Amino acid sequence: MAIHLSELSTRLGEEWAGDADPLIASIAPLDEAGPGALSFLANPRYRAQLATTRASALILGPADRDATTLPRIVARNPYAAYARAAQVLYPASPCRPGVHPSAWVDPAASVHALACVEAGASIAAGVVVGARARIASGCALAEGSEIGEDCVLHPGVVVYPGCRIGARSILHAGTVIGADGFGFAPDQGHWVKIPQVGGVRIGADVEIGANTTVDRGALADTVIGDGVKIDNQVQVGHNVRIGAHTVIAGCVGIAGSARIGERCRIGGAAGILGHLEIADDVEVSPFSLVTRSIRVAGKYTGGVPAQDHAAWLQNAARFRHLARLESRLEALERRLGAAAGSGSSDSRGDTP
Amino acid sequence: MAIHLSELSTRLGEEWAGDADPLIASIAPLDEAGPGALSFLANPRYRAQLATTRASALILGPADRDATTLPRIVARNPYAAYARAAQVLYPASPCRPGVHPSAWVDPAASVHALACVEAGASIAAGVVVGARARIASGCALAEGSEIGEDCVLHPGVVVYPGCRIGARSILHAGTVIGADGFGFAPDQGHWVKIPQVGGVRIGADVEIGANTTVDRGALADTVIGDGVKIDNQVQVGHNVRIGAHTVIAGCVGIAGSARIGERCRIGGAAGILGHLEIADDVEVSPFSLVTRSIRVAGKYTGGVPAQDHAAWLQNAARFRHLARLESRLEALERRLGAAAGSGSSDSRGDTP
Amino acid sequence: MAIHLSELSTRLGEEWAGDADPLIASIAPLDEAGPGALSFLANPRYRAQLATTRASALILGPADRDATTLPRIVARNPYAAYARAAQVLYPASPCRPGVHPSAWVDPAASVHALACVEAGASIAAGVVVGARARIASGCALAEGSEIGEDCVLHPGVVVYPGCRIGARSILHAGTVIGADGFGFAPDQGHWVKIPQVGGVRIGADVEIGANTTVDRGALADTVIGDGVKIDNQVQVGHNVRIGAHTVIAGCVGIAGSARIGERCRIGGAAGILGHLEIADDVEVSPFSLVTRSIRVAGKYTGGVPAQDHAAWLQNAARFRHLARLESRLEALERRLGAAAGSGSSDSRGDTP
Repeated sequence: MAIHLSELSTRLGEEWAGDADPLIASIAPLDEAGPGALSFLANPRYRAQLATTRASALILGPADRDATTLPRIVARNPYAAYARAAQVLYPASPCRPGVHPSAWVDPAASVHALACVEAGASIAAGVVVGARARIASGCALAEGSEIGEDCVLHPGVVVYPGCRIGARSILHAGTVIGADGFGFAPDQGHWVKIPQVGGVRIGADVEIGANTTVDRGALADTVIGDGVKIDNQVQVGHNVRIGAHTVIAGCVGIAGSARIGERCRIGGAAGILGHLEIADDVEVSPFSLVTRSIRVAGKYTGGVPAQDHAAWLQNAARFRHLARLESRLEALERRLGAAAGSGSSDSRGDTP
Repeated sequence: MAIHLSELSTRLGEEWAGDADPLIASIAPLDEAGPGALSFLANPRYRAQLATTRASALILGPADRDATTLPRIVARNPYAAYARAAQVLYPASPCRPGVHPSAWVDPAASVHALACVEAGASIAAGVVVGARARIASGCALAEGSEIGEDCVLHPGVVVYPGCRIGARSILHAGTVIGADGFGFAPDQGHWVKIPQVGGVRIGADVEIGANTTVDRGALADTVIGDGVKIDNQVQVGHNVRIGAHTVIAGCVGIAGSARIGERCRIGGAAGILGHLEIADDVEVSPFSLVTRSIRVAGKYTGGVPAQDHAAWLQNAARFRHLARLESRLEALERRLGAAAGSGSSDSRGDTP
Repeated sequence: MAIHLSELSTRLGEEWAGDADPLIASIAPLDEAGPGALSFLANPRYRAQLATTRASALILGPADRDATTLPRIVARNPYAAYARAAQVLYPASPCRPGVHPSAWVDPAASVHALACVEAGASIAAGVVVGARARIASGCALAEGSEIGEDCVLHPGVVVYPGCRIGARSILHAGTVIGADGFGFAPDQGHWVKIPQVGGVRIGADVEIGANTTVDRGALADTVIGDGVKIDNQVQVGHNVRIGAHTVIAGCVGIAGSARIGERCRIGGAAGILGHLEIADDVEVSPFSLVTRSIRVAGKYTGGVPAQDHAAWLQNAARFRHLARLESRLEALERRLGAAAGSGSSDSRGDTP
């Protein structure tokens, strides 16, 4: 769609400035924008591009208000304003109310008249689908699940029985909500399945990426708070609880019964062991394994990044004998009568 | 469902004791159970809760028989008895025999009259589906695949041609069995696809988690033994062989032609390189990469857990020069005429 | 199918030799082959098996031409010749042109008359499906996506709007192309979704494994070059660019805007952080995290492989204090007046 800058600023609730009120039809980076495009400056690193951009208008912060003469929206948080402007310019395809003839809806399901059920979707007895929710092709909603208003379930999403998804949440293709948690009791060399009778409760305004899996709880529910954003290929174990507005990047694995605070940021392919607690506002770096509870907000990192393979071979070989290497150092320190205590005392017996 | 404690004990083949025979309708942890609930004591850590629980009945071991006066089932393995009791109290939804009108079954397929084929499933020529098997919405079974009696395939499971799944196995939503193994021959800067003509053979009583993938073999079959339990998001490469009753947690990757023994436990997000052998009864810790065959039962761990980011930065920087750090230590040892031999000899040339 | 060795050699464009022209019906390893089977010697390690194999014919390199008297194809690249021979002997099932009655094709879609649309697939308005392309059961192609000639989309593949897939590409079951990239702007403690308005452009002759996800770009496209091969369970973030003929093993995660060169080899479960550049012909080892751009071709490795758990506990504890361990070494060096400079200077302040 196309919109005048003045109207866009009104929709965003932001101020605008400039000598013209151009019609905006797209968004582009400063160095790629052309006529009709809106661009934005959120990272000061790109300020020099203000002089050369061919954008028709800009979004920028108060400090940069006079750094350009182009028509502009001046926003307290220019990056968020850009996101909201893009939502206006690129609206999600509207949900076309109704049930596709090739979809199957059980007579005992309750699908709102303004909801959209696409080709090949299947909706079982007792399911409730809210107004304007979109259930795309091939989704399968099992008995008693509830999908809130304005939700979008992309193709092939599976929701197991009794799971609830809050309003305005987005589930990308192939996501599976409510499969059985991984629970088995050992008995004489084999494994007895423990029925997973809890559910999954997902808050409002949650987004979950493609092919991500969120398991149902063993007895109580698995819970994902409001505004949580989860990327693709993430595994959330049974009885995990994730606090509101936490973001989790792709390929993360969270083991059963872990509790993650609010506003945390979990980097890609990180791992969180089971039965841990992570405080609010914790950042876990990509590829890092959390093995103990984290009580204090801050950034936590593990692992050993890639380096040249030949050098790594030498270093990793030494890691295999690191304790002995320290013992050799201690022996020298003792021999020289060095004050070795400070260093060695708290590394002895300190298990990771 | 609800059941009297006495009848439940009979169904479990376990002894019961107590002054009353309550009707049991649910299972709950000791500290959350209320009237009508059965609870259990499997971990001595929770023994103190026996005094305060409001459960109507308990499952506990012989040693704790007299630790309560509540009606109780006394079981050799209380955790397994709890699992079996939960199976009684929370039975899986029964398979409703028949083929849904929106499913498609090839005339040359053989679907047992007691099997259930749900909405939108598709079953190709030559497929055999056993009695009481449930093929849920949107599953796709390709030519010549075989699904054993009492199997449950949750929605969206895909089985490629010629793969066989043993009786009573459970495949969670989005699982893909029998996609092509990752095999290509390099030729003048590009890759020639090697047809993957083996199949997948899955034993009885196997459970496979949501969005897990098990590739077909290149020439011979990929084989998963009886009673194996695999969690979500696991990748099993072509020609892997997994011994009976091994359990594999979420996000694990197993490269082609690895052979894993019986009763192993592979932790979440672990990795196993290709063409390795892992003995029976091996435990691999979460997030650990196995790079060599493991011949001896036991526990194996790798990686470096997360710590405070600033400290990690310092430590990881040293890892990049760990070999040189050892050389410096050796230089001091030589200078002091220290008997350095024991420590340094086997770390030199020892590649991980 | 079965074919005479002479005809097979003609189809491969390779020379054959020997006293007989056997009919070949299968391919097997040297030690498992029987009558009617073709085997191959690509790895000199197996040369001794030439003497005992029961194969009817062989593929081998010029150097081994006279190492057997069996009928044989002599090929410059015997492994690639084996791959091509297997393609002849085990042809992919042909696409049966037409649209299955249970599939749904929007009247405004363009599906080639020689394409095949299987049960339960759904094809939206504006989609273009090329000649001989196979769209298997339950696939969902959204508005305006384009599928090239001779593509194979296995069951349950989802293609989001406007994504393009080149000719002869293979997408395995459960793959999701074009889900939204993970883009949110922080604003007052919550996250504002940034519409992802770029697409995905996939080249010709690409293969993508089961349950892999490739996100659409934020503004520009995500791009995968010709001949790229990607295994199962891989995550490709938004605006990633992957050069031609690169291979990526299972469970790899590639963060947004990373640029990977041509002919790279990325090992299983490796990770590549966002906004990096990786040169052509780089090999990344399995389970290795790339945290910086790599400008020079070669092999790169990170991580710490599994070892005996008790030893690992000791070593990982020392890693947590590795910087202090070096400080203690430096103190000894200073005390002894050792020339410590060379080793310590470049490890100080060197962050990974």
